[in-house]
Amino acid sequence: MPRTSERYRDARREYILDAARRAFARNGFHATSMHDLFAEAGLSSGAVYRYFAGKDEVVVAIVEDNIRQIGAMIRAVTEERADGSFGAALAAAVETIQAKHRENGLAGIGVQAWTEALRDPRIGAAFEELLTGLRSELAEVVAHYQRTNTLPPGPSAESLASVTIAILVGYIQQLALLGPDAVADVPDALRALWPSSAVAG
Amino acid sequence: MPRTSERYRDARREYILDAARRAFARNGFHATSMHDLFAEAGLSSGAVYRYFAGKDEVVVAIVEDNIRQIGAMIRAVTEERADGSFGAALAAAVETIQAKHRENGLAGIGVQAWTEALRDPRIGAAFEELLTGLRSELAEVVAHYQRTNTLPPGPSAESLASVTIAILVGYIQQLALLGPDAVADVPDALRALWPSSAVAG
Repeated sequence: MPRTSERYRDARREYILDAARRAFARNGFHATSMHDLFAEAGLSSGAVYRYFAGKDEVVVAIVEDNIRQIGAMIRAVTEERADGSFGAALAAAVETIQAKHRENGLAGIGVQAWTEALRDPRIGAAFEELLTGLRSELAEVVAHYQRTNTLPPGPSAESLASVTIAILVGYIQQLALLGPDAVADVPDALRALWPSSAVAG
Repeated sequence: MPRTSERYRDARREYILDAARRAFARNGFHATSMHDLFAEAGLSSGAVYRYFAGKDEVVVAIVEDNIRQIGAMIRAVTEERADGSFGAALAAAVETIQAKHRENGLAGIGVQAWTEALRDPRIGAAFEELLTGLRSELAEVVAHYQRTNTLPPGPSAESLASVTIAILVGYIQQLALLGPDAVADVPDALRALWPSSAVAG
């Protein structure tokens, strides 16, 4: 397949997903039909079905995209601050999630996606794979901070990665349920909890 | 109202909520109708409607109960370990949540309740009130650990309480989506992150 056509397909797919995100953020996954998606995207049913066989596939694609985005954010802020503190890296990840949420309602879509993962075995499997992959990646980041003594050396890097994911997931839940103002002071707390001078316990 | 009658009403209400929890854990909030609840409880519609006007009221009652239970757990383990570390208290809270989850599917019901909170303004308002109350209570607990130097004195107790809630919420999400085995090592990580000997940053 020539590259231009691939690029066109990717752009088209992304355009449909953007429309779906807007519709989902407004009315929720369940109240939104494929017809609502056609209308939001301004495309025919055939044009959308060329990319996604049904609503489930759209939901899976958005969930995969969200987790990939959050993984990329975390990697970016961590590499950028490789000689900074774990707290600063985590705070920067949280601030990026907050900015993304103000832009496209990321947090509300995330919370709904978790319920879908419990309801639909296909979405559940996709979520498990992606969450497990994110934990492996984060474990490498965490191991770096264990070596530089800003995280305790005792517990496994995987277990600390699970705590890190819990903080991000729980932050997203509060962002969705309480709004950005209620959790505006979380980045400061994270920077203070794991400053670069912290001594491992 | 005489006390025995009050006690009967409380027991009846709790019996109906237990039946609802079983039905919800099995089929989810949305796929479960009031008729399913009557069948699960083995009661007539009239007997159930005497306590709850509809499914929304049942969901709100379960959400309130869950948050109250989690609040009570956290207070209990914190008071019990007032001279222990913050990490040990948090680990004990997480272990209690895990035991409760194995007993009645708490985590899956929790995740579904968050989505309901986004969908239904009444449930959203109840959730916001309860989550804000939990944060105020946790802020007092956190302030104790700030005074005893196991948590950094700089950030507000409220912001550290929000991080604490994030860890518990994110743990519940992973418990629901990945299962207890995947997060079995989280209590060890929490104990290591905030040991009693930790020096505030």
